[in-house]
Amino acid sequence: MTTPPDLFPEKTPETSAPAWIAADWGTTQLRLWVMDAQNQVIDRITSDRGMSRLRPQDYEPTLLGLLGGHLTPGDYSDTDPIPVICCGMAGSRQGWAEAPYATAPCPPPGIAQATRPVIQDKRLTVYLLPGIKTTDPADVMRGEETQISGYLAQDSNQTGPQVICLPGTHSKWAKLDQGRVTSFSTFMTGEMFALLRGQSVLRHCVSEEGWDDTAFTQAITETLAAPAGIAAQLFRLRADALLSGQRPETGRARLSGLLIGAELAATENYWSHKSVTILGTDTLARCYETALSALGCAAQRVDAETLTLSGLCAAYDQLQKSRTP
Amino acid sequence: MTTPPDLFPEKTPETSAPAWIAADWGTTQLRLWVMDAQNQVIDRITSDRGMSRLRPQDYEPTLLGLLGGHLTPGDYSDTDPIPVICCGMAGSRQGWAEAPYATAPCPPPGIAQATRPVIQDKRLTVYLLPGIKTTDPADVMRGEETQISGYLAQDSNQTGPQVICLPGTHSKWAKLDQGRVTSFSTFMTGEMFALLRGQSVLRHCVSEEGWDDTAFTQAITETLAAPAGIAAQLFRLRADALLSGQRPETGRARLSGLLIGAELAATENYWSHKSVTILGTDTLARCYETALSALGCAAQRVDAETLTLSGLCAAYDQLQKSRTP
Repeated sequence: MTTPPDLFPEKTPETSAPAWIAADWGTTQLRLWVMDAQNQVIDRITSDRGMSRLRPQDYEPTLLGLLGGHLTPGDYSDTDPIPVICCGMAGSRQGWAEAPYATAPCPPPGIAQATRPVIQDKRLTVYLLPGIKTTDPADVMRGEETQISGYLAQDSNQTGPQVICLPGTHSKWAKLDQGRVTSFSTFMTGEMFALLRGQSVLRHCVSEEGWDDTAFTQAITETLAAPAGIAAQLFRLRADALLSGQRPETGRARLSGLLIGAELAATENYWSHKSVTILGTDTLARCYETALSALGCAAQRVDAETLTLSGLCAAYDQLQKSRTP
Repeated sequence: MTTPPDLFPEKTPETSAPAWIAADWGTTQLRLWVMDAQNQVIDRITSDRGMSRLRPQDYEPTLLGLLGGHLTPGDYSDTDPIPVICCGMAGSRQGWAEAPYATAPCPPPGIAQATRPVIQDKRLTVYLLPGIKTTDPADVMRGEETQISGYLAQDSNQTGPQVICLPGTHSKWAKLDQGRVTSFSTFMTGEMFALLRGQSVLRHCVSEEGWDDTAFTQAITETLAAPAGIAAQLFRLRADALLSGQRPETGRARLSGLLIGAELAATENYWSHKSVTILGTDTLARCYETALSALGCAAQRVDAETLTLSGLCAAYDQLQKSRTP
């Protein structure tokens, strides 16, 4: 078992020259970790300059601007460029350059499958890691495959069938076996919750904060028992608020339970094996843990950002090995 | 069978003095029909001054402003005020004045249950018709009960069990028996479609216009066969566009089919009796007709605005009868 890297540096940024840069470049956010040769984090940098705000020519200046003092001035013509290993939407067709999807069943794509965009600055060389697709039914992931790679790297003894759940705006469920992603499925649960809570007629009866555990679990079990009923249950949130003064915190928990319940009704063939690893430790991940527990499924949560960095470290290790004669 | 009124006047507005005013005052729109004593339309007036834009004190000036030349100047102290019979959200708690819901099973509420808001102008008297509620499960309608009243008035021979479907932003299904609404259920299908099409990640792969009949019908039958699967099908619209270039018109028809399919999966106990009357004649109503037909259910469409006016005419007839000694 590989020891997971510490996400946050203990050293001051000035003490070490970077050996490489890890990057998780998503649609709305960018996270950079400046790494030393022992895969320890020298610095962690976050930015809101995600893919949705950038044209292809904006990526290099964004990277150089954020890395700033970590790069020694000069043309680096006598030294190897610093590798930047990047997962996420920067590798999509609308991103910096396209890193074409690998097709499942497959291991998480590694450095050998990475796309190298043209970059003017000789101090850096960039590797964009591909995502994974399935074609029947069609589905895609980009970024999550690197979390899966990190998960596999952290415990290489677990080679049998496993199920992981990645909650989020677009949550994903994946089956792993022998280090390969054998199938996966994506759900718009998080985005639906945000739209219904913030912009639909339900906004008056579903609060921004607050919770009701009982209402959440009840909505989960109701939806699992009768998945077809969910369409009728949504407007009922408003009717219950109008007619019986249902609290908006209860409305919030119930809306979440209905939507996560619909996702769980569609993923029964994933969690029915009774053991799921949830990649995430935030409030949403805890909701999934509660829901699975109510359905008799044991779930463990692991930190998603740690896994992303572990996955990027695994790609860097592959790069180092490929350089060793 | 009562002859339905013509919605649009043939006479010029100046030729008749109004006997009464019919009003459908909804959340975003207001429709007024100026009526003569024979329930013929003298004038039809529409406005975007719906409930969502008005405070209680705004209703009277709005009404007076729109009726304008139809009201004779003067204090009317020697004549009866003109009745304004109004259905829709103007009668909600957030509207002009609250007309409390009748509780199903019940006939559509009539003039005897109407709320009369305080009005300063002596030329008018206003009746706000109540909506209908159910308490277990909680549900509400306000405006649709008047369409149902109009539907019942148009064919009073049909007293046996009937099912009607009212497509819209919040579509409703209702069971009628012996002139009573025995149960009903509301679905956010139209609002969900608008949010997902316009504001979610699907906006790039679901067009604003265009259609694909085959994709629509296929999505309907797929969803009915496996209602739990819909949560997984939504993101697939994006994946199919990315991976196989699915046309946005096909995406539009498929999204509509998935959402209407989910509604139909939840309303099987309504349409399984094989005959449904759809209150609506627009594109959306035709979609419901196509979907029901694919499921082996005969559906007929009737014009919703005609029924609204018929329902308001029925309330006016009740008012006239109540005045007859």
